[in-house]
Amino acid sequence: MSGNRTAALAYAQNHQERFLEELKALIKIPSVSTQPQFAAQMNAAAAWVAEQLRALGMSQVAICPTERHPVVCGEYRCPDSHAPTLLVYGHYDVQPPDPLELWQSPPFEPTVNGDYLYGRGASDMKGQLLAGLKAIESILKTDRLNVNLRFLVEGEEEIGSPSLQKFISENRERLQADVALNLDSGILAPHVPAITISLRGLAYFELRVYGAASDLHSGTFGGVVHNPAQVLCELIAAMHDAQGRVTLPGFYNRVRPLSEAERAEIARLPLDEAYFLQVTGAPALFGEEGYTPAERVGARPTLEVNGLYSGYIGEGSKTVLPAYAMAKISCRLVPDQDPADVYLQLLDYLQTHAPRTVRWELIQHAGSPPAMIEPDRPEVIALSQAMEQVWGKKPAFKREGGSIPVVAQLQQLLGMPTILSGFGLPDDNLHAPNERLHLPTWRRGIETLIHFFYNLAA
Amino acid sequence: MSGNRTAALAYAQNHQERFLEELKALIKIPSVSTQPQFAAQMNAAAAWVAEQLRALGMSQVAICPTERHPVVCGEYRCPDSHAPTLLVYGHYDVQPPDPLELWQSPPFEPTVNGDYLYGRGASDMKGQLLAGLKAIESILKTDRLNVNLRFLVEGEEEIGSPSLQKFISENRERLQADVALNLDSGILAPHVPAITISLRGLAYFELRVYGAASDLHSGTFGGVVHNPAQVLCELIAAMHDAQGRVTLPGFYNRVRPLSEAERAEIARLPLDEAYFLQVTGAPALFGEEGYTPAERVGARPTLEVNGLYSGYIGEGSKTVLPAYAMAKISCRLVPDQDPADVYLQLLDYLQTHAPRTVRWELIQHAGSPPAMIEPDRPEVIALSQAMEQVWGKKPAFKREGGSIPVVAQLQQLLGMPTILSGFGLPDDNLHAPNERLHLPTWRRGIETLIHFFYNLAA
Repeated sequence: MSGNRTAALAYAQNHQERFLEELKALIKIPSVSTQPQFAAQMNAAAAWVAEQLRALGMSQVAICPTERHPVVCGEYRCPDSHAPTLLVYGHYDVQPPDPLELWQSPPFEPTVNGDYLYGRGASDMKGQLLAGLKAIESILKTDRLNVNLRFLVEGEEEIGSPSLQKFISENRERLQADVALNLDSGILAPHVPAITISLRGLAYFELRVYGAASDLHSGTFGGVVHNPAQVLCELIAAMHDAQGRVTLPGFYNRVRPLSEAERAEIARLPLDEAYFLQVTGAPALFGEEGYTPAERVGARPTLEVNGLYSGYIGEGSKTVLPAYAMAKISCRLVPDQDPADVYLQLLDYLQTHAPRTVRWELIQHAGSPPAMIEPDRPEVIALSQAMEQVWGKKPAFKREGGSIPVVAQLQQLLGMPTILSGFGLPDDNLHAPNERLHLPTWRRGIETLIHFFYNLAA
Repeated sequence: MSGNRTAALAYAQNHQERFLEELKALIKIPSVSTQPQFAAQMNAAAAWVAEQLRALGMSQVAICPTERHPVVCGEYRCPDSHAPTLLVYGHYDVQPPDPLELWQSPPFEPTVNGDYLYGRGASDMKGQLLAGLKAIESILKTDRLNVNLRFLVEGEEEIGSPSLQKFISENRERLQADVALNLDSGILAPHVPAITISLRGLAYFELRVYGAASDLHSGTFGGVVHNPAQVLCELIAAMHDAQGRVTLPGFYNRVRPLSEAERAEIARLPLDEAYFLQVTGAPALFGEEGYTPAERVGARPTLEVNGLYSGYIGEGSKTVLPAYAMAKISCRLVPDQDPADVYLQLLDYLQTHAPRTVRWELIQHAGSPPAMIEPDRPEVIALSQAMEQVWGKKPAFKREGGSIPVVAQLQQLLGMPTILSGFGLPDDNLHAPNERLHLPTWRRGIETLIHFFYNLAA
């Protein structure tokens, strides 16, 4: 470890009380993005972030208005023209604190209790954002930072980032970087560091099946026409084979096979059958044969029914033979599947399998492609080594089952991969009462990020 | 034809204007059973029917209160101790007239236009009830009637006969008869007389499938647990085979096979593919292989999905992996199937086919057994001959796909079969604006019933 790195780590160590006070100050601003009455506080939080960036010596700091909440930008250009460029992503908004009565301390009065700081946004993600800024401060106050930085700190993450696509499209120059660092995630346990290397994509559809011109009496007409609810069930039933595989033609063509090394990596995660049984409460697990539950969630695509409707669904009975049946169906996609391909595959499936006794239509809702960062990229190696330097062990490489809009948008619009990490923990009570931040892990996070910047610049 | 029969027919002929005036008087009473504001008119209609029975010389005439609308009873005992006994069923209530603005003449101001009498209840079934009473009058005024009669005229048929089961149970003695005559049906066309010899029964279920303990995020958990909506679809899909037959074990065991004679009888009905395509508006017909559409509706059992629900069914998309899925499923049954058997068959099917990855429950809603009258019973032959005497051709023997509560209840509670007939026509606008009665057919109906009573007594 170089002498400078040691100075930066010492600075972080020496200023940890102030860092915590600054985090408390940010948590005190109730920046609830979804409720209009917090508009002034949203602006105050954006101004607070912008002021932090200015205090760090960032240039081009700007609070950029959007249709709802502003985006805070800024940049740092280092003298070395060969230095890598990192886009630091964050969000300053938080979830609503309701139900208030379940909080043991007020959500916007940050309170330390033992190893934890309690407060809305402590973990998601004001704490994570500050970890990044305080790592940068620790280096800049003691040394030079040999990495170019750009900042994208939004205020709409908790409401689905509705303004972000437009903002990214209109600010391509200002955001250009080699890779994005998104700390809006976490590690698996205080002793299990992790980096998320892939997110699944989404293709979402609505399948509508029409039979008779209007609902019929099931006595007078039952046996004469094809019941669209039955047809819908038959179509859905045949979308999986007996091995739990999706039968849409070509569905797996572009799915990257898991290497033995990747399977070994996934097997290290504490996501075994007992874990999934416990968190889901299902009577038994189920999924594609030949893959573990963690592999199925992280690295295999799915097709799920999200909704079903037909006929009479109230109390008791009604002897209707429905004219119409509908299913919401979505696929979670893995690299290198494309939502547009999946639409055509489902269309192909329906054209082949739907009987002529009904009419049908397939509606496409918004989706997103899967996202993945190659684990052998230098930025991922730099973070992995940093974690090893702090924790004394290599991080787990996680594959997340869900999608994150900003990750998909940076990939799609700027071709920019994202390193997704952070120092939250599974029991941080995200989006729930008594959200908290594990302070020892947070401090390790700041140290990790100091190492990361040094490793990246090396 | 005997001389007396001729006198009765002449009486009917001579009094047809008065008969029509009496029918108009009854239609003028707006006896809408479903709307509480017509309570007084319901009592007035019951009193009108009771007065008719008294005027005919019936004994034991009584207006019997029920929880909602009264039942009118009465009887006629003929001197011949070997005479058959007939229970004449009717209902004096009508459907609401809404939408009023679509009526070309006021619904409760009966209006003759050409061959038709317009008014609510003209065909369903005040006209049919009066046809029966006027045939009896025509005989009693000119001759002796050699048939014992009992009357059961309810006021709740249009609301599903909720008080009838209790009433029948508590009045077994008063209602005892060899067979019931229910004129609340119709013929197929002015030149095609018909008798309905069977009704399908109903077994109605609700199948609930449970997966995870609560709705899950389809990204985080998709691929790990069995989606109950998918399981439900698979269970429903496998309830039919490729030939459109129901796969519940033993489902067809008690189904009476159709004889060649019965098939020939059904083939006479004007219920071909073109007819069903036209009335349903379906793109194509569908059903059990090896049977015509009319056979499938009248003489074959079915299993239909009446309702489907799971997860998110609103606008747009929600990436939920539902914890619960539900289907309403019902079977139409034919002689000699039993709803209780079908419940056990469905239970057996589910125990065999439902995977262990979900929990499920099967709820049984009210059903009814199928009803059939043997076409070679003397009462059916008497009516069939009467139709041939009036129309010059044998009636069609129809099998109806639906169920009628009173027919099932008389069968179940008193073991009494019902001759279901009447002189309505398919285009009488039942339950719709401009309900009407085809007067030439109605007059033929009165003549037919006069013949029927004579044939029955012979």
